[in-house]
Amino acid sequence: MSRADRTIGVFDSGIGGLTVVRAIRRLLPGESITYLGDTARLPYGTKSHRTIERYTLQMGEILQRFDPKLIVVACNTASAHGLPALQAVSPCPVVGVIEPGAEAAAQVKGPVGIIGTLATVSSASYDEAILRHDPSKTIHSVACTLLVPLAEEGWFDDPITDAIARRYLNQLPFEVKTIVLGCTHYPTLLPSLERTRPDTRWVDSGEVTALSVDRLLKGSLGYRTESARGPLRILLTDASSRLREVGERFLGEPLGNVELVEP
Amino acid sequence: MSRADRTIGVFDSGIGGLTVVRAIRRLLPGESITYLGDTARLPYGTKSHRTIERYTLQMGEILQRFDPKLIVVACNTASAHGLPALQAVSPCPVVGVIEPGAEAAAQVKGPVGIIGTLATVSSASYDEAILRHDPSKTIHSVACTLLVPLAEEGWFDDPITDAIARRYLNQLPFEVKTIVLGCTHYPTLLPSLERTRPDTRWVDSGEVTALSVDRLLKGSLGYRTESARGPLRILLTDASSRLREVGERFLGEPLGNVELVEP
Repeated sequence: MSRADRTIGVFDSGIGGLTVVRAIRRLLPGESITYLGDTARLPYGTKSHRTIERYTLQMGEILQRFDPKLIVVACNTASAHGLPALQAVSPCPVVGVIEPGAEAAAQVKGPVGIIGTLATVSSASYDEAILRHDPSKTIHSVACTLLVPLAEEGWFDDPITDAIARRYLNQLPFEVKTIVLGCTHYPTLLPSLERTRPDTRWVDSGEVTALSVDRLLKGSLGYRTESARGPLRILLTDASSRLREVGERFLGEPLGNVELVEP
Repeated sequence: MSRADRTIGVFDSGIGGLTVVRAIRRLLPGESITYLGDTARLPYGTKSHRTIERYTLQMGEILQRFDPKLIVVACNTASAHGLPALQAVSPCPVVGVIEPGAEAAAQVKGPVGIIGTLATVSSASYDEAILRHDPSKTIHSVACTLLVPLAEEGWFDDPITDAIARRYLNQLPFEVKTIVLGCTHYPTLLPSLERTRPDTRWVDSGEVTALSVDRLLKGSLGYRTESARGPLRILLTDASSRLREVGERFLGEPLGNVELVEP
């Protein structure tokens, strides 16, 4: 198989990364995608740097079995804590979701807000990446711990979600008009987030990551040559029935067959 | 060391089990306790039977290094899915939190409500255990997925917690006047739960488990013979700074030194 026809490996701590798969499939419908969700050990967002880095390396090893042309770390927390370690050992290129999100955020005018898990916000990875593009940027961050379980509970468009979003987002100064959705679960909560902070520009790190995947394929990696819709293979380290319901909402299409792998 | 002087091993998926340790230490202050929290893979409550059982067996193996006289599975989800497998291989007795909670619930008059994680409620373990004591009992259960992350976020006594508790508890019929707190995190949320459903008798599975530990020690296992306050050793599979803050709230005393172990 030529390199261009090989699969794109997408790794996430759970099923939130399916929002990134959705964005990639919308932009690049012909690509083959192999998704690996570490549902046996999710969430990563409350865990330590050392543990997240170890898990990221293990997941990278599993994806190598599928001989990917590219690995996308579709989890902000794993991108914040495990990306350099995985890039150092991976035989194929590895991209995360933070650099594309930071690049997009650096291009807008005015101060920027970052919302993410506790581990992502504590890492200051978005801050560092944005400041590399624009050292004068003012950045405000808030860890929004409850938004992931709310999205997994399916309370997407809900007065309780509104109240929780308000409590977190009110911690950002009024003049912040651009907010990075620094967690793959957050795009599913946009109705509540928008009600809480109207007139905000939301940067969806999944969408900008799809654009950056497109740039890499256009460059040296190449597009898949078959014209049919690309296959999507889904591997999880644990399968509960709940994941299927929520996963389809994140992916925007039926999940199909889910394979179990040992972490 | 005589058997009576050996430690009591307490295992939990995270730090919620510290509420059980608190109850044991209140009742049996002289006992030595070795606590093991699987914080690298928490929560168990959204995971599958197979994965929870595998984790429970691994945690039991780690506790055996400390030669315990008794193991307490202080996690409702692990008790629901991993207890028989651990009892089958453990060289020392193993008790869970479900049987003591069910026994207490079976003794009250009228229908009983069970609140717990998705995995605990799906297992129907409380239902089965209560019906063994009283086959005529009416039982209603609700999975309250968001209560664990709310307790870990520290929103113990909070209008948002009230609203979420109301949504879950209103699913129980009005005539239910006894509710089992089928998750070790829930006792910390009692102010909100009580506001939502006044005139309810709450069965704290941690407290009744402490009584059942006392019965076992009084029987063949024996009480520790030293009169000084028993030592408490805390081992976690992952240590984030957040766990310390919340853990002390659960334990009701300073956490002291925390040791890391590989899961």
